[in-house]
Formats: sequence, C-alpha cells, structure tokens
Amino acid sequence: MRVALVVAYDGRAFFGFQRQARGRTVQQELETAFFDWFGTPVAVVGSGRTDRGVHAFGQVVHADLPRAYPPEAVPGALNARLAPDVRVLEAHAVADDFHARFDARAKTYVYRLSLRPVLLPMDRGLVAHIPYALDVSAMAEAATAFCGRHDFAGFANAGSAARTTHRTIHTAALVQRGRELFFWVRGDGFLYNMVRNIVGTLIDVGRGKLSRADVQRRLAGDRAVSRSSTAPPDGLYLYRVEYDALATPDPDIGFPKP
Amino acid sequence: MRVALVVAYDGRAFFGFQRQARGRTVQQELETAFFDWFGTPVAVVGSGRTDRGVHAFGQVVHADLPRAYPPEAVPGALNARLAPDVRVLEAHAVADDFHARFDARAKTYVYRLSLRPVLLPMDRGLVAHIPYALDVSAMAEAATAFCGRHDFAGFANAGSAARTTHRTIHTAALVQRGRELFFWVRGDGFLYNMVRNIVGTLIDVGRGKLSRADVQRRLAGDRAVSRSSTAPPDGLYLYRVEYDALATPDPDIGFPKP
Repeated sequence: MRVALVVAYDGRAFFGFQRQARGRTVQQELETAFFDWFGTPVAVVGSGRTDRGVHAFGQVVHADLPRAYPPEAVPGALNARLAPDVRVLEAHAVADDFHARFDARAKTYVYRLSLRPVLLPMDRGLVAHIPYALDVSAMAEAATAFCGRHDFAGFANAGSAARTTHRTIHTAALVQRGRELFFWVRGDGFLYNMVRNIVGTLIDVGRGKLSRADVQRRLAGDRAVSRSSTAPPDGLYLYRVEYDALATPDPDIGFPKP
Repeated sequence: MRVALVVAYDGRAFFGFQRQARGRTVQQELETAFFDWFGTPVAVVGSGRTDRGVHAFGQVVHADLPRAYPPEAVPGALNARLAPDVRVLEAHAVADDFHARFDARAKTYVYRLSLRPVLLPMDRGLVAHIPYALDVSAMAEAATAFCGRHDFAGFANAGSAARTTHRTIHTAALVQRGRELFFWVRGDGFLYNMVRNIVGTLIDVGRGKLSRADVQRRLAGDRAVSRSSTAPPDGLYLYRVEYDALATPDPDIGFPKP
C-alpha cells in the first residue's frame, strides 16, 4: 500500500534530507521510524533533496507500507517515533505507481531575509540576516526577470545530475513585511542550489552591484556578468510540492504572499 | 551614566528573567556580560520578571555604566558577550532617576496559539498547541470583557507582591491568521501569571466550558465561576514596555495586529 506523506522539518539540526553516511538526515529518520513501526525496512523517496540547514513545510515523500493501514492514522504513528524537529503533517493513499520525485509538477520555495540591525533570537537559523541597507524595490523588480522559461545553468552549483538546465518559473516575487523580506518562487523544477543562487543575485541587486539588465544578461548565458554568492541555507523553505494525482495543502503558515 | 536597553530573548533555554540560585536567567546573563565588559559589577533592573519559557521582543532594563559610553555602541558591545538567545536591540541614555519597573506606563503582551492538528517543528516552545476545535468568535467576543479597570485577583496566581490587584486593560483582542491565534493585551500592569490565566480562560470559552457572561462574573469577583488552567508559558511574549521619558520601538515582528 503506497502512501504519500507531507512532511515539515526544522532543518537546523539536520544534514539535509538525503540519507548519507554521517549526520542526521530526514530521509534516514523517516526510514528508522517506519522500521521501528513495522519491523521491516521501508524505503522513503522524497520529491527532492534539501541541503543541510534548509527547512520544509511541505516536503512530499512516498513509501510502501508492508501492510494496509488507515492513512489518517499514519501521521500519529510516525510522529510518535520521530524527533520533534520533523513532523508528518498528512498522509494519503496513492496509486502504486505514484512517485514523489518524478510526478512532481511544481515546487514552491520561500526564502526569508531579515533586515534588522540585530537578528531576533527566535530567528537564528531560520532567516538570512542582511544587516545593511538594500534597495528593496530594485530587488522586487529584478525578481520578476526570473519568470518564464530560461536556461538556469548560470544559477546552479556543481552537483546537479539534471539532464537539462532549462526550467520554467511560474512565480518569482519579493514581498516585504516590516523589516523582513519573503522571496517566493514557484516553478516546474529547480537545479542544485538554484534558489539560493537566485537570492544571492537579488541581494547583489539590492546592494547596487547588479542591475536588472545584468540579471537578464546572466539568464541569457552571458558569463561576463559576475556570479553572485550562494545565499545561506538558513532562510530557505521548501514550501509546497504539487502533483496532478494528489492535492497537497497550502501550508498557510502566515508568510505574506505575493 | 544610566542606560535603558531594549532586550529580546528566546525563553526556551532560560529559567525566566529574574536572577536565581539555579539555572540560566536573562538578568544574570546581562549582568555577567556587563561584568565581562567593565570588570566591575553592574546591576540590571528589568521592567518586570518573565517566567521560565516566556519570550520577549521588548523587555526593557536599566543599568548604570561605570563610565560614559556612546549608547549606540552598547548593543554591539553586549551582544558580543551574550549567548545568541538573548539580544540587546537598542540602548538609550536616560536620566539618572529613570527606573525600568517603576516608570513603566504600559506593557503589551502577545500570546500565540496554534490550532493545527500537528504542531510545526519550528513552533516548538514558541506557541501553545491547541489541537482541538475552538469557537474562535466566542473567544474574540469574550476577550473584550477584560478591557477597562477590574480587580484581577481572580486571574492571578500566588506569588504576586503587588499592593493592589486592580489593573486597567487598554486593549484585549484576539486576531486569527490561518490556523494561528494571537491574543493582544495592553495594560498599565499585570499580576503574576495574569496573562496566562486570561488565556486559559479564553481557551475554556473556546471549548464551550465558559461563556462571556461567566468571564464577566469572574471579573466581578464571583468565585463560583470555576477557575481555568494557567496557559503554558510557550506562547507568551513580552512585546513592548512603554514609558513617558523613553520612546521604545514597536518590535514590528509581523504578528497580525488588532
């Protein structure tokens, strides 16, 4: 019986999503919880990996339960076996050929930036702290340049196994609330570190180092435009993954929307 | 040279504000930071204590610096010596007779409740989790009953050293955003555990155990109305303290306002 789970995690104490030899990972802890529950190995397949320190409100994974179980009781059974920094929010029965990665139609990420002179203690590891002046309206204007279909090779770090570097971005928008910025990006897929490289580019726009035209030139493949730093993982949230065959929830966590 | 500091802290790893024999406290850590800086004891006086697990965006303290120092450089000097879960946001030079507790004209607290079936991992210790149905409009209506001048003896826990149990509440309002509630209360002062007892009462209203009329009867001193549980510290934030002689900032942290 295949189930799809909607999983939230606080990435601060994880070495990312994907199982690895050393360090806590979300995939490993989910598989350990399943093993503890059923006494037999259960493989967990995610919609994609997230890096060390990156958070999620709506990661989606699929797994095959070794025996039938009411889906609505799966979150409770797993959460009782998981550390409190990873929570299964929902579980749904899906077809046996449903695949969390291959069937994903769109993903939404949110990146949070705090512009306060002093970072609030509750925000440690949960936002990127930019304590210098930024031209927010220039950043908001440049953000829209990412919309549409582009070759994002210039915005990927080495480590992508993707066959093509073309991706379609449906939404790319910056929202300000008080002294915090929220960058929303929704697309059909993302290359390795692509969101963090886009945000690093927008920060350079905010600092006056790059113009919107520079961003467009870099998107068009012009390597003469200097490459920006990869923004830190702290501010990045995998917000939602969308499927044709599964209605995933809007996490609705109060981030101001575009 | 007397300074007033605006201090934020994440209360999860503190045994409250006030210095005590065992356990980390905010007052003690501020005094230790001053001692490390000046090499001589500096007493820190807060606007009031907050309990173990309670948070602050705008606690105000005063202290006498052993020598003159530019106030704008004080936050950096202290933050470099403090653990990251307590931050000095601002410092202002004040008159030698300014007193953080005696001169406080109004305090604002916010209490956060999460109504989600599963608590988000980022919210652990930062909101109270109420995973059952609440009648939010009944709670919002009952909240307004607290406005005005009342004898809050029935909403205080033992431990108050206050001379009178009468307090004036200027604002008491419940705001919903998605599956989260924010209870705002601003008044001229608060008895021991008063906000948490008010919130416990509102939760009982939301569960249908008490009506607005019951709340009014209890406020009028009717001990026949059953007393509600004290809500947990997790959701409580000292948001702002106001003074005649000092303009403290609105923390402006994105909580939806009444």
